[in-house]
Amino acid sequence: MEFRMIDRIRERTAQARDDVRLGIGDDAALLAVPAGQELAVAIDTLVEGVHFPVGTAPADIGWKALAVNLSDLAAMGATPAWALLALTLPRPDAAFVDGLADGFAQLARQHRLALVGGDTTRGPLTLSVAVHGFVPPGQALTRAGARVGDAVLVTGTLGDAAAGLRCLQAQMDVQTSMHAALVERLNRPTPRLAAGLALRGRASACLDVSDGLLADLGHLCEANGVGAEIDAALLPRSSALLGLFDEVAARDFALAGGDDYELCFTVPAARVAEVQADLARLGCGATRIGRIVAGEGVRVRDADGSWLEQGRQGWDHFPA
Amino acid sequence: MEFRMIDRIRERTAQARDDVRLGIGDDAALLAVPAGQELAVAIDTLVEGVHFPVGTAPADIGWKALAVNLSDLAAMGATPAWALLALTLPRPDAAFVDGLADGFAQLARQHRLALVGGDTTRGPLTLSVAVHGFVPPGQALTRAGARVGDAVLVTGTLGDAAAGLRCLQAQMDVQTSMHAALVERLNRPTPRLAAGLALRGRASACLDVSDGLLADLGHLCEANGVGAEIDAALLPRSSALLGLFDEVAARDFALAGGDDYELCFTVPAARVAEVQADLARLGCGATRIGRIVAGEGVRVRDADGSWLEQGRQGWDHFPA
Repeated sequence: MEFRMIDRIRERTAQARDDVRLGIGDDAALLAVPAGQELAVAIDTLVEGVHFPVGTAPADIGWKALAVNLSDLAAMGATPAWALLALTLPRPDAAFVDGLADGFAQLARQHRLALVGGDTTRGPLTLSVAVHGFVPPGQALTRAGARVGDAVLVTGTLGDAAAGLRCLQAQMDVQTSMHAALVERLNRPTPRLAAGLALRGRASACLDVSDGLLADLGHLCEANGVGAEIDAALLPRSSALLGLFDEVAARDFALAGGDDYELCFTVPAARVAEVQADLARLGCGATRIGRIVAGEGVRVRDADGSWLEQGRQGWDHFPA
Repeated sequence: MEFRMIDRIRERTAQARDDVRLGIGDDAALLAVPAGQELAVAIDTLVEGVHFPVGTAPADIGWKALAVNLSDLAAMGATPAWALLALTLPRPDAAFVDGLADGFAQLARQHRLALVGGDTTRGPLTLSVAVHGFVPPGQALTRAGARVGDAVLVTGTLGDAAAGLRCLQAQMDVQTSMHAALVERLNRPTPRLAAGLALRGRASACLDVSDGLLADLGHLCEANGVGAEIDAALLPRSSALLGLFDEVAARDFALAGGDDYELCFTVPAARVAEVQADLARLGCGATRIGRIVAGEGVRVRDADGSWLEQGRQGWDHFPA
């Protein structure tokens, strides 16, 4: 199985790069990192039924497996270069592999990324992608560096992917453009690579929102020994999300829904306007949603000024 | 689950390296490739029940997941440096993760390899490891370069791992040292990294034997538009293999059994003795098993001088 599969994938994802000295087909790829650049590397796995619903189109699976990894490079302010794909499939299925490779290649070409190696094995449908990017020494964005008083911002809008998943799970019979927009955000997340580059030297800390804003911002706070306060009323939400769900559901998707793949970052207050102007120019925009404070944990202020706390069904006002 | 798991793995696999600028714990690792070196990268997946038997000890799984990848670097003549580990587990299981990390670390430390990143997800037990090594430009061993007349050699012994799997599958009640030696070869393959380095500038082509000698040597021949002739009587086989299986079974394991992770390589005939002396000094040895010929495909001559062909149950003499 392996060799024919790999040939199909190679043909469909071809992308010439001078720094690929030997690509797919040998025991390892041989690659040249440009002088004066460090390598940023990450790996992420998608498992059917866990990270994407059973029945997701192969092209969407291929796109998403690469997108979630490119999002990690975006969060570091790195420029993508190469990827490896480890694909586990229950049985050889040429149409499935072709679709998957096409979706992967569609996103890869947007960023001139070359697939340089991989592995295909038999087993439950699972994809691991490892990505490699470049960043000049000392210029990478990391989770460390947020200071008390820094503003907290996010790119794009939050909660769409989780809402899209809810639409699919509830088998909502709403084939509207709003429905389609949310499902598209679930299946075809946009890694914020240009935003990550623009944040080099400006963001004091950065990560991507994969597990949900509160969980990921919590990680950022923990890495810096600080806390954060978020204003729910400031959370950027798409018109599709607000059109299909009520205010409380939309808020909770934005706070805790996963799979956003937006960047969450901190910036000294004096530089917020400049950063926002640049990210607006890049198309994704950036919204100030709160601030870094002394202490620990993430607190959320609701629109009426009261604090929210996490309950069984979502977020509730603190008991008085 | 993810964060605590990763912390456990990080602690148990710690390995200091100056070229790791930022290790496990951020969105990506930051790494410095030494000046004047190219990067060799490979990825391989192990699926429970496919690449290792259900019930394999976690430490053996961790070792093997790294070993099969290091074997790819060995086949390129590369020096290992870093790895990423994508681990998919049915449920959080601290004892399992600890054992797996310990087995991984045991092999990693032998080669000063640092685990720099990873991902833990929920799903059927699967591990993908991506490895990174260094090789000076132009010095990597590849599958291309074998010429008609070159000798074909292999390191170590062949067929042990497949025989070890047979022992387990047949639930052979032979707790002898021979049985243990074969199962050890299945569970704890030895990547031939020192041999790979020694072959730089000497082997005309090289790969590692993972799918079985005939399959892999077939790939090497195909990559070079040549054929190969192998003498079954020359196949290096361990005393454990010959002690537990009859001559025909041992021959077939050596020809077609997978999971050997020995190196198969070609050398101009005039340099065979020199290469053999060096690899003997490294402990694994190298045995001349045949030669590269014009044509295509791999032919096997049996001890009596007749040619073998693949049958349903193994290898048979050609019908007259």
